[in-house]
Amino acid sequence: MSRITLAHGNGGRFMRELVRDVFARRFGGSVIDDAVGLPPADGIVVVTADGFIVDPLEFPGGDIGSLAVHGTVNDLAVSGAVPRWMTLSFIIEEGFKIDRLDRIAASIARAAADCGVTIVAGDTKVVPNGQGGGLYIAASGIGMRPVDVALGMKAITVGDCLLVNGPVGDHGTAVLLARQAFGLRGDLRSDSASVLPFARAAVAIPGLRFMRDPTRGGIATVANEISQETGFRVLLDERTLPIREPVRGICDMLGYDPLYLACEGRVVAVVDPARAADLLVVWRGLPNGEGAAIIGRVEAGRPRVVLRTVLGGERLLDELEDDPLPRIC
Amino acid sequence: MSRITLAHGNGGRFMRELVRDVFARRFGGSVIDDAVGLPPADGIVVVTADGFIVDPLEFPGGDIGSLAVHGTVNDLAVSGAVPRWMTLSFIIEEGFKIDRLDRIAASIARAAADCGVTIVAGDTKVVPNGQGGGLYIAASGIGMRPVDVALGMKAITVGDCLLVNGPVGDHGTAVLLARQAFGLRGDLRSDSASVLPFARAAVAIPGLRFMRDPTRGGIATVANEISQETGFRVLLDERTLPIREPVRGICDMLGYDPLYLACEGRVVAVVDPARAADLLVVWRGLPNGEGAAIIGRVEAGRPRVVLRTVLGGERLLDELEDDPLPRIC
Repeated sequence: MSRITLAHGNGGRFMRELVRDVFARRFGGSVIDDAVGLPPADGIVVVTADGFIVDPLEFPGGDIGSLAVHGTVNDLAVSGAVPRWMTLSFIIEEGFKIDRLDRIAASIARAAADCGVTIVAGDTKVVPNGQGGGLYIAASGIGMRPVDVALGMKAITVGDCLLVNGPVGDHGTAVLLARQAFGLRGDLRSDSASVLPFARAAVAIPGLRFMRDPTRGGIATVANEISQETGFRVLLDERTLPIREPVRGICDMLGYDPLYLACEGRVVAVVDPARAADLLVVWRGLPNGEGAAIIGRVEAGRPRVVLRTVLGGERLLDELEDDPLPRIC
Repeated sequence: MSRITLAHGNGGRFMRELVRDVFARRFGGSVIDDAVGLPPADGIVVVTADGFIVDPLEFPGGDIGSLAVHGTVNDLAVSGAVPRWMTLSFIIEEGFKIDRLDRIAASIARAAADCGVTIVAGDTKVVPNGQGGGLYIAASGIGMRPVDVALGMKAITVGDCLLVNGPVGDHGTAVLLARQAFGLRGDLRSDSASVLPFARAAVAIPGLRFMRDPTRGGIATVANEISQETGFRVLLDERTLPIREPVRGICDMLGYDPLYLACEGRVVAVVDPARAADLLVVWRGLPNGEGAAIIGRVEAGRPRVVLRTVLGGERLLDELEDDPLPRIC
């Protein structure tokens, strides 16, 4: 049998064989159990949940499987936790090719191993043809946070600097291009990656206030969340905000603003201005960190996000309303 | 706005308002965070994952929301853990009515409160019209298991008794009827419920080997799993196996076997025969436990599942192959 049938979701023999031949083979045996005990670990247990519906399922630089791992790992990492375990729920559309599912499972296993996380539990459901988008994955992540790490927006104050660990908008643009809906092609790749090395380095810097990964809604959305939550104005500086030339060009052509496009391997850190240069140096020294930059600061004033443009003007970066970009992550 | 739009999934204002007005209002504020730290707790952390795709989303005796809570709680409970926390990922189809989503969120909140679990993290994705089945929910559950509780199929031995805490097949039959695809109606309700009181009572009985909730594939599938895993023959006794009359009647009419139909509020326990009567008495004394029964035993012999019929014959209960019943849970 080369395609998923409804019988692969019925709890019986076909499901057992699918779990054994694909998921248990790729992730290890324990994933077939309904409930799994975790080994003891020090610190505070941190939990996260994320759904993945990206279209197309495979794109330059990643696929829905590696994206699910990176997205989950990154949510934990930016909270100051060390990602340890994941659970995965697969919602598969009838007719999906089993070798494609296996390729995605292999990608999950590779990404999880790279990030040091173990897939500990899983579930498989099959929906009838026409009631799914091929494959959706819902993940939860569990990590351990040292008791002395306490990050949060409450610690942010006027003068704090914002940093990002690399160019923004690559993932959103790469997925858009992969849809080929615009007749465009490019060699742009998604930035999908673990930000754990960057998060670990940032946690080691005294004066780190807060981190977040700018996924859906991009860097402008993270800046808006910070502004709304703290009540301060956030100023972003277009002169230092790293955007790759092809991303800028494609966005100009299609009418997208890269500041609102999803990143999947980026982290924004808010840090004491006296420590911003230290963090920048550390980040730039990490693999794939050469594009890190100080991109803005927290200021007194009405809670809003303002971009200081290259020409010295100011542009309001409003909270995202329309411009949905469905199935971008 | 009365229906879900793609903008409700873009990370911006509409999504924030949906999370605030529906999920955070129903589940409490912490669900809006990306990663949540859990309070310290004694024991072994136990984790489970489950997806829910039931059609119709609302049915007599429950809905996809209460089902997601009960399914998750039950996976933890039968492992001997006390369910404590849940995460929820919503995959919503564009056009879904927001008041219906809110009704389901309210049902989740009620069920979670009844079961003593807290929704600690969540995620919302929106898929374009025609790429989803209205609403899919993926849940993960986290519970704490006392260090001295160790259940597992490895402990099962010849002579052990199988018990169930009530009639089987109600959920599957009720959902089938709710589809009205057969022009049938009945007053049958899903058995969707927490089995935690039954699991707690069973854990207190010395000689308890193993528990499992007979969801997809029903009681025959649990019996097959036990048989395959232990290498023993499992005998089920039709004379004591509790099946409600309307379930039997509808299944006869439609050609389904209630032993393969999903239950969502049932637990199968395997226990030392010397303690089976004790457990039966305890279970029958619990609310909704009056239908509990000793339904079979583990025997030496080829690993297979045999039903001893009312007339004294034997019928092989094979592993489920076809008969998919899509979107039953």
